[in-house]
Amino acid sequence: MQIESPDPWPLLESRPGPGLVIFRVRTDLLRNPRTGVAMERLVLETPDWVNVVALTPERQLVLVRQFRFGVSEVTTEIPGGVIDPGESHRAAAERELREETGYTAPRWTYLGSVLSNPAFQTNRCHHWLAEDAVLSHPIDPDPGEDLRVGTASLDEVKAAIARGEIAHSLVITALSRILDLRS
Amino acid sequence: MQIESPDPWPLLESRPGPGLVIFRVRTDLLRNPRTGVAMERLVLETPDWVNVVALTPERQLVLVRQFRFGVSEVTTEIPGGVIDPGESHRAAAERELREETGYTAPRWTYLGSVLSNPAFQTNRCHHWLAEDAVLSHPIDPDPGEDLRVGTASLDEVKAAIARGEIAHSLVITALSRILDLRS
Repeated sequence: MQIESPDPWPLLESRPGPGLVIFRVRTDLLRNPRTGVAMERLVLETPDWVNVVALTPERQLVLVRQFRFGVSEVTTEIPGGVIDPGESHRAAAERELREETGYTAPRWTYLGSVLSNPAFQTNRCHHWLAEDAVLSHPIDPDPGEDLRVGTASLDEVKAAIARGEIAHSLVITALSRILDLRS
Repeated sequence: MQIESPDPWPLLESRPGPGLVIFRVRTDLLRNPRTGVAMERLVLETPDWVNVVALTPERQLVLVRQFRFGVSEVTTEIPGGVIDPGESHRAAAERELREETGYTAPRWTYLGSVLSNPAFQTNRCHHWLAEDAVLSHPIDPDPGEDLRVGTASLDEVKAAIARGEIAHSLVITALSRILDLRS
């Protein structure tokens, strides 16, 4: 794969904007090397995220359902969340699995990370695989959550993705590391 | 897959916020049905997006490299962009492929869509497959773009995803429809 790289855009100025709860908004002034013209671009500074492909000893996937405010609908996803300051993404993965689902697991494998949206977000989402996960704790949702937990076979999960019932981009990037998602 | 659905959160109030170029910010006040407590949540109202898995007659994938302002780095992605008001996502796919890469294609297949991020964004990204794509036009970048175009075999693309060189979540969800991405 040999594709010439365009030049980085020189940063001329960076102005903080209003805090938006989960983001810090920043406006950068950059020069387009192709045209020489300076342009403002919006950046949402976001902590890294983590999500977890958790499989029970029977190879059932642990899923959470919750009302999502962006789309105003209940969605089906894998557990995940924001990495706390100073926390490793592995520790955040274990914490989110336990808090959101009550499951804990003895075997953890890193599945890599993706850029959430490099056009305007600064962050990555790290994907972890947890195997032999068992229900061992009560769930511990934060005040902004109302979750239901369940499991499904990987065949059911693949079919739900094909039907669009599991549709969160970052859930699909995580699952693509362990499932062939071609229809 | 039988997972109980939590209740929708009643919307108590919705306030428009500042325009942020590519988003309209909205703050919703919703009641958590579990706790009864009303909470503010931020929503970024975003038009739907589209991206294109374009394959040449030799089954090479058409790729674009550009400097991305969120991560301040040059990334490798498939072509795509925002669907214009009143435009179909199929028409947007053809337009973005032609404008960003100069390629056009006679065969188009819909690959489905994903939710960009249902936690705080309203929109979907539609994925299209374009086959027998050929370079037929000069590229026509908008003033905010500085692109380089190239091609790679699907084996190279799969390896680049495994190495993290292709890392945009929405590029990976599109490619997962035609490539087995398990390592």
